[in-house]
Amino acid sequence: MATNETPIETYITKHQEQFLEDLKAWLRIPSISTLPEHKADVKHAAEYAIGQLQRIGMSEATLIPTNGHPLVYSEWLKAPGKPTLLIYGHYDVQPVDPIELWESAPFDPTIRNGNIYARGSSDDKGQVMVIFKALETLMAVNDTLPINIKVLLEGEEEAGGESIAHYITTTPERLGCDAAFICDTHMPAADMPALITGLRGIIYTEVEVQGATQDLHSGSYGGVAPNPLHSLAIIISRLKDEDGHIHIPGLYDKVRKPHPQEQEFWEKDPLHIKEAYLREMGVNQLSGELEYPPLERTGGRPTLEVHGISGGFVGEGAKTVIPAVAKAKISLRLPPDLKSQEVFTLFEKTVHEVAPAGVTVNVINVHGGEGIIVSPDSAPIQAASAALAEVYGKPPVFLREGGSIPIAALFDAVLHVPVVLMGFGLPDDNLHAPNEKYALSQFFNGIRTVASFVQKLAQK
Amino acid sequence: MATNETPIETYITKHQEQFLEDLKAWLRIPSISTLPEHKADVKHAAEYAIGQLQRIGMSEATLIPTNGHPLVYSEWLKAPGKPTLLIYGHYDVQPVDPIELWESAPFDPTIRNGNIYARGSSDDKGQVMVIFKALETLMAVNDTLPINIKVLLEGEEEAGGESIAHYITTTPERLGCDAAFICDTHMPAADMPALITGLRGIIYTEVEVQGATQDLHSGSYGGVAPNPLHSLAIIISRLKDEDGHIHIPGLYDKVRKPHPQEQEFWEKDPLHIKEAYLREMGVNQLSGELEYPPLERTGGRPTLEVHGISGGFVGEGAKTVIPAVAKAKISLRLPPDLKSQEVFTLFEKTVHEVAPAGVTVNVINVHGGEGIIVSPDSAPIQAASAALAEVYGKPPVFLREGGSIPIAALFDAVLHVPVVLMGFGLPDDNLHAPNEKYALSQFFNGIRTVASFVQKLAQK
Repeated sequence: MATNETPIETYITKHQEQFLEDLKAWLRIPSISTLPEHKADVKHAAEYAIGQLQRIGMSEATLIPTNGHPLVYSEWLKAPGKPTLLIYGHYDVQPVDPIELWESAPFDPTIRNGNIYARGSSDDKGQVMVIFKALETLMAVNDTLPINIKVLLEGEEEAGGESIAHYITTTPERLGCDAAFICDTHMPAADMPALITGLRGIIYTEVEVQGATQDLHSGSYGGVAPNPLHSLAIIISRLKDEDGHIHIPGLYDKVRKPHPQEQEFWEKDPLHIKEAYLREMGVNQLSGELEYPPLERTGGRPTLEVHGISGGFVGEGAKTVIPAVAKAKISLRLPPDLKSQEVFTLFEKTVHEVAPAGVTVNVINVHGGEGIIVSPDSAPIQAASAALAEVYGKPPVFLREGGSIPIAALFDAVLHVPVVLMGFGLPDDNLHAPNEKYALSQFFNGIRTVASFVQKLAQK
Repeated sequence: MATNETPIETYITKHQEQFLEDLKAWLRIPSISTLPEHKADVKHAAEYAIGQLQRIGMSEATLIPTNGHPLVYSEWLKAPGKPTLLIYGHYDVQPVDPIELWESAPFDPTIRNGNIYARGSSDDKGQVMVIFKALETLMAVNDTLPINIKVLLEGEEEAGGESIAHYITTTPERLGCDAAFICDTHMPAADMPALITGLRGIIYTEVEVQGATQDLHSGSYGGVAPNPLHSLAIIISRLKDEDGHIHIPGLYDKVRKPHPQEQEFWEKDPLHIKEAYLREMGVNQLSGELEYPPLERTGGRPTLEVHGISGGFVGEGAKTVIPAVAKAKISLRLPPDLKSQEVFTLFEKTVHEVAPAGVTVNVINVHGGEGIIVSPDSAPIQAASAALAEVYGKPPVFLREGGSIPIAALFDAVLHVPVVLMGFGLPDDNLHAPNEKYALSQFFNGIRTVASFVQKLAQK
C-alpha cells in the first residue's frame, strides 16, 4: 500500500461508526419511488443526500426539480488540468412487499452477521454512501480532491428513470466529463472483484385484456363468457415456452454472437456461477434455455419474465368471479444489439397475433432502456481495475451483468465517454426482495477502492 | 285472482314502504363472509334475520353457533296434518371489489329506476326478505300459517358453506319436512317466470407454484430462474384451450347426454339467451365451446375458470421481480353426473402432469359441491308452478342454472324430499360484481308468489 494512503486508512477507521450511522439514517427514509404515497419520503431522501454532499465540502449541491422526483446535482471543479469524473447513483428504492417475509423491518436498518439489512442497503443507497464517504475521506485528509467531480443522483431508477433521461438529453453541456462512474452493480463474491463490461437493456410492458364490460359470476356465465385471465395465460404461454424460448418473430435476429473469449469464459464458468445460481435460488435445476451456458443466459440472451397478473379475486377464500379486465406486467431483458423501441414494436405485434378471440388487448410501453458494452482498454477502466487489485489483492474479472441500467446507455450515447461500472454488491444481497442487505466489509472496501480509483484517475 | 287473496294484496300495498325499509336496513350490514374483518357484521346480519322472524310470529328463532358463521333456525309447526316446508336462504354476501366501479356505495342501498342497488340485494338478502314478508303477510292476514314452516339460513354460502353442510348431515331429524324451498336463483326476464330443474356442482381450487426460495431480480436471474407466474400461465393454458375445451383426461366421460326435450329447448333457444348473453356481457361474440348451444354450455357442460392470480407485483409502476411463489384460484362447474371429489382428483393429477419442470406444484381443494336434477312432476314443484302462473299470468319455463347451490344437492341427498328452486333475480342483477341490484317489481311479485305457493301447498 502506498504510504500516502495511511491517513486515508486512519480516517476511515476512525469514522467507521459515523459512516454507518449516516447510512442508517438514509436507509430509514422509505423512498419508494413507484408508490405515490411515498413522494415526500423520496424528496426527503434527496435532501439527505444534499446534506452529505455539503458535509464533504462540494462547491455546490442542489435539488433539481423534475416532473417526477427531483435530481440531486453536485460539483467540485477546483482541479484545473485534471480529469472530470461524473458519478451516478440513485436514492430511490424498490417497494417492500411481501413485507411479512422481512426478518427485520425494511426501513429499520439492522446489523446482523456482518451485514446491514434494509431496503436500499445494496440497491443503491449503500453504494452511493460508499462514494460520499470516499470523497469525504479524500477531502478531509488532503483538504482538496485530486480530480474534478460531478455527482448526479436520481430518485426514479426503480420507476423508469424518465426525469434523468430528459435532463441528460436536454442538458448534456452541464454534465461534460472525461469519464462516468456508475456504482450500482455487484461482484460475484466478496473475494472476487469485478468490473461490468456489458449490461442488458429492457422493455417493461403492461398487457391489458378486456372481456365483458363488467365482472361476471362463473356460475351464470361460465361457458359463454370471455375470461381475460385465461386469455392472458394463453398469451403468456405463447410468448415464452417452458424451455425459455421466446416466440416473438424477429427477436433473435439481431442478437450478436458473443466474442470468442466471452464465449469461452461463459462455457468454462470458472466462477462456478451455475452452482451459485442453484444455491442462491434454492432450486435443484436451472430454468431457461438449457442449451446456453448460465452466464450467457443472464448476460447475453434476451429473456422474458412475467412480474404480476392482476384482475379478479386473490383474497382469502373463494370468489367465483370472471373479471372484466386482467393485466399482466411483462418485461424483456435485451442484449446490447437489441434496441428497446424496436423490440417493443415486435412484442406488441406478437401479443395481438397470439391473443385468443373474443377479448380486446392493449399493450402499454411502461418504459425501456438500452444495453451497453464497455471497452476494458480505456484509461478510466484501467484505473478502476488497478484500484480493485490494490484493495482486494487480485485483479478484477470482466463480466456482463443481466440487469438493466439505462443510464449507462444514455451516458454512452449522449456524453460519449467511457462508463465505469464498478459496484460492491454481492449476489445474495436480495435486491428487489425481502431482507435486502449490504455486506459491511464491502461497504468499507468500497470506500477504499473508490478513494483509490479517484486518486489513480488524477495520475493518468 | 281468488277472492281470499284480496286481504293479502291490501296488506302488501299498505306495508310496501316498511318492507323496503326492512330490506335496506339488512343490506346496510356488510356481511362479507370470506373476509375475517367482517366476522362481527356477519353475526349482526344473522341477528337482524332473527328479529324479522320474531316479527312474523314464528314459534322459535335461534342463532345456532358453528365453527364458522352462525346458522339461523326458525320454526312454526302449528298446522297439524299439513305439510312441512323447509325454507333455505343465506344472509352473507360477496366481497365488493373493485369498489371504484360502484355507482353508489355497496352498503348504502339506493333505489334507482325501479331497482334497489346494494351488495346482497339479489344474492341473497333480497330473496330471503321476499320469504320473510310473504310469511309476515300470511300470518298478519290469517293470524296463522296454512302449513308448517321451518327456516334455515346460513352465513357461509359465499365461503364454501361448510357449517350448514355439517349441520344438515349431523342433524337431519330436526330438518324433517315434505319439501325444501331454495330462493337463490333467477328468471330469464321479469315477464318470464322460471323454475330451476338442474344446477351445476363445483370444485374450487387453489394451485400454488413455488420456484426459488425467495423473490428474485429479473435482471440478475432472468434466464436461469424458474418463474412461478409463467409456470401457472402454462398450466392454465394446458387445462383449457381457447375454444373452451377442458383437457382433463376422463372429465367428459360421465357427462350425461341431455334429455331430448332439453336438447331441443337448448338448440331452439326460444328465450333468445344467446342475444341476452351478448347484451349482458357487452361483447360481440360468445366464448367457450361454440359447437354447443349457449344454454347447454352454461347449464349442461363442465366449465373451467380462473378467478385470480397472485404473486409478484401488481401495484402502480414497474417492479422487475420474479416471485418465489404464485397462486391461481381455479374452479370447475360440473353437470350433475360429475361428482366433485372425483373431479378434484382428476384435476389435481392433470395439474401435476402438465406443470413445467423446475417448480413445485401444490393443488388445494378449497371447497366442492354437487349438482342436482329435480323432477318437475312432484307436488311442490306443481304448486310453485301454479303460484308463478297466477302472479305472472303465464306458466314458468323449466331451466337448468349454471350456478352451484351445493345446499340443493345436500337437501336432495340427506332429506330425500323434492327441492323447489324458485327465485326472483334477473340476469342483469350483477351478482358477485359491482352495482348488484334487485328489481322492486320482482321483490313484490316474489312476495305474492311465495304467499300463493305456501297456500297452494296446504291444498295438496
